[in-house]
Amino acid sequence: MNPQGLNALDRLTALLSKLPGIGKKTASRLAYHILDEDPSYARILAAELTGLHEAVRRCSRCGSYTESDPCPVCSDPGRDHSLLCVVERAQDVRIIDESREYQGLFHVLGGLIAPLEGIGPGDLSINRLAERICEEGVKELILALNPTIEGDTTGLYLQRFLKEKLNGFPLEITRLASGLPVGGDLEYADRLTLSRSFRGRVKL
Amino acid sequence: MNPQGLNALDRLTALLSKLPGIGKKTASRLAYHILDEDPSYARILAAELTGLHEAVRRCSRCGSYTESDPCPVCSDPGRDHSLLCVVERAQDVRIIDESREYQGLFHVLGGLIAPLEGIGPGDLSINRLAERICEEGVKELILALNPTIEGDTTGLYLQRFLKEKLNGFPLEITRLASGLPVGGDLEYADRLTLSRSFRGRVKL
Repeated sequence: MNPQGLNALDRLTALLSKLPGIGKKTASRLAYHILDEDPSYARILAAELTGLHEAVRRCSRCGSYTESDPCPVCSDPGRDHSLLCVVERAQDVRIIDESREYQGLFHVLGGLIAPLEGIGPGDLSINRLAERICEEGVKELILALNPTIEGDTTGLYLQRFLKEKLNGFPLEITRLASGLPVGGDLEYADRLTLSRSFRGRVKL
Repeated sequence: MNPQGLNALDRLTALLSKLPGIGKKTASRLAYHILDEDPSYARILAAELTGLHEAVRRCSRCGSYTESDPCPVCSDPGRDHSLLCVVERAQDVRIIDESREYQGLFHVLGGLIAPLEGIGPGDLSINRLAERICEEGVKELILALNPTIEGDTTGLYLQRFLKEKLNGFPLEITRLASGLPVGGDLEYADRLTLSRSFRGRVKL
């Protein structure tokens, strides 16, 4: 019930509360803020939202978001095309790219295998990955999936699937190191992280 | 710099990061989420934003947001029109109204006196408040301002200003009780809150 009859504000609040990490109270605060602001803000935001899906599409090669197809990363001759980094989501491409640590190409799976959520290998861009490895002559596949149960399961599945599918094609598969985060504290490391950081210890 | 050339996404992220409590990382996460969603979400959100300022206006009496003027609260004959609750912002009306604790009318000041931010009494709806008290025969004015320096300063100013301005008009001015929040812990109460809860102690 809304004794003040603020239906437009309530509809906006309901829409905003569908965003991840935005609860009902935060959504209401944001809606009031937008109302308090100059109407030009709402107008510009509306225009950007309207044009968003038309401007940004999926790259037909890597599956990342792009405004031109193939995306600037895939079509950059300065990158090492023998390196392919597999990520879960399109935004992971940006996160890794901004770290300036990696100069190869990417492949977006579009999710992780999660049987409880009904997501199987068929829902991910795995066949396309196998095709790309052969077509583009990839030498090393770097799995940059989150170190979670789903990420590890998907990594294992990819390893077995590609070994069978590629049938002798020379491909090295690696995954990102897992261990203590820089600046972290042993005291706050969970048992699994600690176990991995021991098993992956590095010679000095 | 944006090596992926995602200009539309960057513009949306920049706009979202102007919202209160939304940093650059959260804004980016929200923008990617909107992109991941069905385009209908962005379209509906854009439509609501476009129509917002046209649908929602200020009530000419209390200054609260409304879709009809005067607002449903001001024009409700079932409310006690001799009680007037003074709040800082329009959203405070809703917060108080939803508590179902208060059945009088409201007056939105539109801010608090804050000399350091250059906000003086002239920037607030104070003259209109004095007019309403006389015109509407208000008997009790309840100050429901945040218990902060700015809230207290504004409350003191209103008290002095109205005493002089109303010149003998019988008006009781009260403010909301300040003290320990229900469910709170003495250990975490600051000195000022504790001091107020002592001074305002209640006989059992």
